Amino acid sequence: MSLIVTGSIGIDTVITPAGRADKILGGSCTYFAAAASFFTAVRIVGAVGEDFPREFLKVFEHFKVDTAGLEIRKGAKTFSWTGKYHDNMNDRDTLEVQPNVLAEALPPVPGTYRDSQYIFLANTHPGAQMELLSQFPSRKLVVADTMDLWIKTANAELLALLKQIDGLVLNDSEAYLLTGEKNLVKAARKVVGMGPKFVVIKKGEHGCLLEHREGRAMLPAFPIAEVIDPTGAGDSFAGGMMGHLAASGDLGLANLRKALALGAVVASFNVEAFSLGKLEKIKRADIDERFGQYLQMLAMAG
Amino acid sequence: MSLIVTGSIGIDTVITPAGRADKILGGSCTYFAAAASFFTAVRIVGAVGEDFPREFLKVFEHFKVDTAGLEIRKGAKTFSWTGKYHDNMNDRDTLEVQPNVLAEALPPVPGTYRDSQYIFLANTHPGAQMELLSQFPSRKLVVADTMDLWIKTANAELLALLKQIDGLVLNDSEAYLLTGEKNLVKAARKVVGMGPKFVVIKKGEHGCLLEHREGRAMLPAFPIAEVIDPTGAGDSFAGGMMGHLAASGDLGLANLRKALALGAVVASFNVEAFSLGKLEKIKRADIDERFGQYLQMLAMAG
Repeated sequence: MSLIVTGSIGIDTVITPAGRADKILGGSCTYFAAAASFFTAVRIVGAVGEDFPREFLKVFEHFKVDTAGLEIRKGAKTFSWTGKYHDNMNDRDTLEVQPNVLAEALPPVPGTYRDSQYIFLANTHPGAQMELLSQFPSRKLVVADTMDLWIKTANAELLALLKQIDGLVLNDSEAYLLTGEKNLVKAARKVVGMGPKFVVIKKGEHGCLLEHREGRAMLPAFPIAEVIDPTGAGDSFAGGMMGHLAASGDLGLANLRKALALGAVVASFNVEAFSLGKLEKIKRADIDERFGQYLQMLAMAG
Repeated sequence: MSLIVTGSIGIDTVITPAGRADKILGGSCTYFAAAASFFTAVRIVGAVGEDFPREFLKVFEHFKVDTAGLEIRKGAKTFSWTGKYHDNMNDRDTLEVQPNVLAEALPPVPGTYRDSQYIFLANTHPGAQMELLSQFPSRKLVVADTMDLWIKTANAELLALLKQIDGLVLNDSEAYLLTGEKNLVKAARKVVGMGPKFVVIKKGEHGCLLEHREGRAMLPAFPIAEVIDPTGAGDSFAGGMMGHLAASGDLGLANLRKALALGAVVASFNVEAFSLGKLEKIKRADIDERFGQYLQMLAMAG
């Protein structure tokens, strides 16, 4: 119930071994919201510029995302990113990034959003994440994403944030940077020691590790033969995870594992096309079918 | 029942970020046999030189390995390998390798071994693997390992071998080299198209993919906080897998998945010490306990 995400909404140009797409809809908030929308109603808080194409707004409509918190800011330009993936589809280089409206003040949170219980703070400055957090007095589950930039340049704010949130989601390389460890288990334990109830360490095509105060999960990604564009895989993973948690209201460890698996399944669809191309084509039943295949991949003789 | 392995038995010097061990017992046959011995009786075929330390023979005794096929060859020297692992505990450099007795003729297979049903051909020249294979007329399951060297220098022999075996086990980088693919699923499918019923692609700490004519498995490794020496992880993984298959006699897909999971568990013990140091200390009950933890890591809400 009442899942909200705040993060970037951008215009991306993406070059992968499978092709190139210019000026497509992207951003962490976008991918998260689309993925989560298969499970529950999603609210977004984010700002774009006057240049934001009208057809991109229709994508949010397609996913029935509540855009009351989407500000189209006068005189501003939309965040834009150009990236190129290596042959392995894992590593990428940022060729150009223009923060534009992302460098300005956050948009206001609509009053109708104040009762939100499930909060996902997509990757942005931890100071801004903290400020947002305080605006949701009914919060039941708060999960944040972060990145190497904030670990290096806003470490104190990030450590303060970790004491206020329930879960942190980050990449393995970021977990190593944050903790100074070189081993995944040690890094995960150290993050939990910093405050949150759990951490999800994403390993891209290799799946994820969940370290929780009450136990652990180690789950594979759903293997995909035709990867077109990995952009947004981590955000759609988090969207599927939070969407299921919000829809079910069950924050137990076994349901958290199921949420991660559903996140992995949604992410596996996401990488099969540029932008939201694949997620726009599928229905909840497609996710459930692939989730069945996912469980089958793990099904062992008793 | 009647599991046999043929491969290298060596004297290793290993340097890892956790320490250094000189002139320790190693080799693919050694790690495989020790791991498999927790599940079933194991026979080995291999040769060492006159320099092979007596205390190393006691290690095989400890695991109750049938050493009727172990030849201590007069005038020969034991295979030796010196390697150094990188900080990530995944990549390694071979500092020195002396094939010695491994470059000579294979030892004869004892007549008492001819009824062996489960055959593991650890990594060696595919021509030699093919020759061995023909000596087991009662074979029920034949699985082979290979490496980049043979993919490059004995490709025709390897392709011929693939038509004669049930399963192939190899690393992800080797699977890409063998198939010319860059995607794990595509590479796996292509290997199965080359002849075997299934392929297991090992991804080190990231687990493995099983591509089988009848289905798939994608399983994580068991996460370990204190990795001391990754040497033999792949061989002990294969040993646990084959040991369980031989003990159960069930070659169905669901039991193959369980075999992979048990292999992952045995390998997780193996990396916690140099040589067989950890496997010598544990009992079958320790494996079963950790296997329970492994299943728990994957346990989801219904």
